[in-house]
Amino acid sequence: MKEGSGPLEAGERSTVSPHSSRGLNRGLSVLDLILRVVAALGTLGSAVAMGTTKETLPFFTLFVLFRAEYKDLPSFTFFVVANSVVCAYLFLSLPLSIFHIIRGAAVNSRIVLITFDTMMLAVLTSGASAAAAIVYLAHKGNSSANWFAICQQFNNFCERVSGSLIGSFVGVVLLILAIILSSMAAAHAAKKAIA
Amino acid sequence: MKEGSGPLEAGERSTVSPHSSRGLNRGLSVLDLILRVVAALGTLGSAVAMGTTKETLPFFTLFVLFRAEYKDLPSFTFFVVANSVVCAYLFLSLPLSIFHIIRGAAVNSRIVLITFDTMMLAVLTSGASAAAAIVYLAHKGNSSANWFAICQQFNNFCERVSGSLIGSFVGVVLLILAIILSSMAAAHAAKKAIA
Repeated sequence: MKEGSGPLEAGERSTVSPHSSRGLNRGLSVLDLILRVVAALGTLGSAVAMGTTKETLPFFTLFVLFRAEYKDLPSFTFFVVANSVVCAYLFLSLPLSIFHIIRGAAVNSRIVLITFDTMMLAVLTSGASAAAAIVYLAHKGNSSANWFAICQQFNNFCERVSGSLIGSFVGVVLLILAIILSSMAAAHAAKKAIA
Repeated sequence: MKEGSGPLEAGERSTVSPHSSRGLNRGLSVLDLILRVVAALGTLGSAVAMGTTKETLPFFTLFVLFRAEYKDLPSFTFFVVANSVVCAYLFLSLPLSIFHIIRGAAVNSRIVLITFDTMMLAVLTSGASAAAAIVYLAHKGNSSANWFAICQQFNNFCERVSGSLIGSFVGVVLLILAIILSSMAAAHAAKKAIA
């Protein structure tokens, strides 16, 4: 009661929260920073790989397309935009993540980070799986809808486009981990802030 | 210090945490329960709407398909599976959500819920946007890949399939809100647990 209402001294805080708890929170923050950097690089790689892929065939007929680019398919355009947005967000969130390593007791800023992380997770997942659905169609085609596989003609384009999905899905997994770690860290930080 | 090491009584806890904080946490938990129920109904509706849609045309030719079902397109099958899984998870999570209304100070169970919520958010978003990418293709077609719009023939099928996306996207938004609310509630609960 008295401790809760009165002002806290630094000595009290360190005795209440043992070193293990403090180290745990710092470890979570460092891990969060690493996850963010790797996820940012993954989404950057995906956006660049998809954005720069072009294939022009040496021949063309009236019925077969002769030039493939990401702009030809709206889902691939969305993929590039979603990856760029998430990549920019992740780089912008790095200072806040570093701030959390230094000041382990911050609670509200962690919740702000969870909020934006969750939204960005939805954006990134949605871009990645929309592109994956189209890539699958390009590889396999669909006989009942009369959509033909275009990867026979655009082999190189399809290879690179499929590869560019990897970075994005890695980003999704890392963002999920970052959200879970942030929520653990927020709960620990809240305990420390009161204690 | 003494309070932290010794067992807590109910009276102490209520005097330390003011009524506003307790009410806030209970309010968050009730809101979480409502979000979960609505999201579960949304995903259930989506799965059922997509799963039961069939259209058989009164005529058929050799080149045009004459029967459309969700099983014809892998993305739609994934959509039904993803929505069913998330719906089942949301119903299973309801008891835990009710437990949080009764016991506001639970921290670890909230973090468990955030963990699974985040994974389910990724599954649901991915199903919804893969289906959305194919629905868009069915409506608009793609001239550069020679994929024709099939919605002229399967007007009724396309209408219902497009409609079934709504419940899924509503579920995505509600899950995002549920994760944010849970992280706030976890931080508040952690403060209360120590105080």
